[in-house]
Amino acid sequence: VTANATTSPAAAGQSVTAAGQARDRLLAAAEHKMREFISSERFRWSSVTPQAGALVDAVSVIVNAGGKRLRPAFCLSGYLAAGGDPGDPCIIPAAVALELLHVCALIHDDVIDESSLRRGVQTVHAWHTDDHRRHHWRGDSRRYGESVAILAGDLALVYADRFMNDAPATVDAAWGELRSELIIGQHLDVAAAAEGAADPELARWIALVKSGRYTIHRPLVLGASIAGRPDLGPAFEAYGAAVGEAFQLRDDLLNVFGSAAATGKPGGLDIEQGKMTLLLTLAIKRDPHLRELVSAPSDDQARLHARLTGAGVREDVEKHIGMLVEQGCEALAQAPMDSEWRDELANMAHQVAYRDR
Amino acid sequence: VTANATTSPAAAGQSVTAAGQARDRLLAAAEHKMREFISSERFRWSSVTPQAGALVDAVSVIVNAGGKRLRPAFCLSGYLAAGGDPGDPCIIPAAVALELLHVCALIHDDVIDESSLRRGVQTVHAWHTDDHRRHHWRGDSRRYGESVAILAGDLALVYADRFMNDAPATVDAAWGELRSELIIGQHLDVAAAAEGAADPELARWIALVKSGRYTIHRPLVLGASIAGRPDLGPAFEAYGAAVGEAFQLRDDLLNVFGSAAATGKPGGLDIEQGKMTLLLTLAIKRDPHLRELVSAPSDDQARLHARLTGAGVREDVEKHIGMLVEQGCEALAQAPMDSEWRDELANMAHQVAYRDR
Repeated sequence: VTANATTSPAAAGQSVTAAGQARDRLLAAAEHKMREFISSERFRWSSVTPQAGALVDAVSVIVNAGGKRLRPAFCLSGYLAAGGDPGDPCIIPAAVALELLHVCALIHDDVIDESSLRRGVQTVHAWHTDDHRRHHWRGDSRRYGESVAILAGDLALVYADRFMNDAPATVDAAWGELRSELIIGQHLDVAAAAEGAADPELARWIALVKSGRYTIHRPLVLGASIAGRPDLGPAFEAYGAAVGEAFQLRDDLLNVFGSAAATGKPGGLDIEQGKMTLLLTLAIKRDPHLRELVSAPSDDQARLHARLTGAGVREDVEKHIGMLVEQGCEALAQAPMDSEWRDELANMAHQVAYRDR
Repeated sequence: VTANATTSPAAAGQSVTAAGQARDRLLAAAEHKMREFISSERFRWSSVTPQAGALVDAVSVIVNAGGKRLRPAFCLSGYLAAGGDPGDPCIIPAAVALELLHVCALIHDDVIDESSLRRGVQTVHAWHTDDHRRHHWRGDSRRYGESVAILAGDLALVYADRFMNDAPATVDAAWGELRSELIIGQHLDVAAAAEGAADPELARWIALVKSGRYTIHRPLVLGASIAGRPDLGPAFEAYGAAVGEAFQLRDDLLNVFGSAAATGKPGGLDIEQGKMTLLLTLAIKRDPHLRELVSAPSDDQARLHARLTGAGVREDVEKHIGMLVEQGCEALAQAPMDSEWRDELANMAHQVAYRDR
C-alpha cells in the first residue's frame, strides 16, 4: 500500500492568481485539520484497545493517498468569491466535511464496483480481503474485506458529519440535500446499469446530480452561504450544471482512454458494467446503432469500445466540453462578485474539464 | 415481503404507569413523524424520476416492519426522567434520529452477516438480490443486492443525521460519540470473529459499547441533555452498563435458544460465525475447555452448541441477568429524579432483560 505520487493533493501553492493562492492557503489549513483529526481519532481508539484503531486506519489510507480535493476547493472558492473573510476559520470544517463525505462515497463505491485501485493505492475492501487471506482467518475473505470497507465508509460519513456540525447552521439544508442527492444518484447509477436502461435522459440526470450538484454547485453554495451570501445560489447552480457536465464527460473519456497509472483507478469499468455514461449519450446521437450495443450482452463490449475509440466521437466530445466550459463561465458574467473570482472560477472550470486524472 | 405481526413496534399504549404512558405518547409521535418523513421523501424522489424512490422504499420496509424502538424509548425516558416538558416537541427529532441510525446499522449488519431475515421481513440485500435474479438483470445478483443495501444504509444514516440537526446543539458531543462507538464496536466484532480471538475481556468491551452505551446509556443521556440535565450522566452510565450487559446476554440466549419466528431474525448465527459472545465468556468460566471449541474449526460448532445448551450454563446466565438488572436499578437509587421514573426505568430494565424477541 504505497501512495502514487501523481495523486497527492492538488492543494497548496499551485495557483498563480492572488485569489487562487488565498484559496490554496485555506485548502492547506483544511488538509492539516483533517489529517490531525484522523490521527487523534486513531490514537484515541488504539489506546482503548489495540484493534480499535484499525478501522480509522482504513479511512486514513484513503485520505492520505491524496486526491484532487475538488469539493473542498469549490467550497472555499464559493466562500471567498462571496466575500468571506480569508482569516476566519469558520469555513474550514465545511471543507473537511465535504472531503470526508467523498471518502465515504469512494470506499462504498469501490465495493459496489468491485474496484481494486483508488487514488493509486489498494481499495479498502481489496486490502482487507488480502489481509484476511494472508492470515488464514476464519470465514470468507471477500466477505471480511467488504465488511471492513462498509464500516470504514460509515465511519468516514460520521466524521464528515461531525465536522459539518461545527459549521454555521445556515448550511444545514444544503448539506442535507447534497448527501441525499449523492446517495440517490449512486443508486440510480447502479440500477440503470443492472437494468441495461440505455436512457440518455436518465444518464444526464444522474450526471447532473452526481457531478454538477455534488461536486460543484452544492460545495460553492455551502461556501457562499457560510459567507452570508445565498444570493449567489442561482449563478453557482448554472455554473455547476455546465462545468459538472464537462467534468463528467472528462471522467468518461479518462475511463475509456486514460491509464490507471495516471488516474489511480482501473480503466474501462464503465463499459464493462454496461453503464449509460454521458459520453455514450453523445456517441449515440452520432451513431444510433450504439444504443443497442450498450444493453447488449457483454461479448459485444469490445465492439462498443472500438466504436467509441473510433474517429469522430472523441473530437465531438472535446468540442462539447469546450462549449460547456464557456457556458459555465458565462453563467458568472453577471454574478455579483469580484472579477478576480470570476477569473479564478474560470480557471477552475478549465482545470476540471481538462484534467488528466 | 410481509411484516411479522410479532414485530410491530412496542410503541403506544402498552405501559401501565403514568410515566410509561407519557413516554409512549411521545414514542407514538416520533413514530408518526418518522413514517411521515419517509413517505414525503419517497413522494419527492419518485416525482423527480420514477426509479429514484426505490432506495427510500428499501429504508421504508425496514422502518415499517417495526422493531422494539428501544433507543427512542430510552431517549424519551431520559428526557422525561430529567424533568423535560412532555408537551415540548423538541425531543421528538432526537428519538427519530436514534431509530434511523439503528436502521442503518441493521441494514449494513445484515450484509456483513449475510443474514436473510430482519424484523420478520426479508433483509434489504436478500430482497434486492432476489429481485435482480427474477428480472434477469445484468451482472451478479448478490453484488447488486448488496450494493442497494450499502446505499440504503447510507441513506438511513444521512436521514438520522438530518433529524438530529433539528435537536438542540447540546446533543452534538453525545451524538458524535454514540455513532463512532457503534461503528468501531461493529468492526471489532467482525475482526474478533475472523481472528478467532477468544478474548473474554474484548467480548465484554464490545458488549459494553454496542449494548450498554449505544442502546441504553447514550440514548438516556441524549434525552437528559435536551432537558438540560447533564448531571444525570453518571447514574445513566452505570444503569446502562449493567442493563446493557443483561440485554446482550438475553440477545445471546435468544440467538442460541430462540426461534426465528419470535425474534424475526435467523438463530445460531453467532456460533456459526465463531463470535466470542458474552454468553460464551460466562460459559467458559464454568468450563474452560469451551474456549478451545470457540476458535476451533467449524465442524466443532455442533459440539459447542451441545455444551452451551447442556444443563447449568443457561441457569447460570439467568442468575447473572437477574443480578445485572438489580445492579442497574440500584444505580438509580440516589439519582435526582422522581420516584415514578426510578420505577419506570426499573420496568424497562426488566423488559429488555426478559424479552422474548
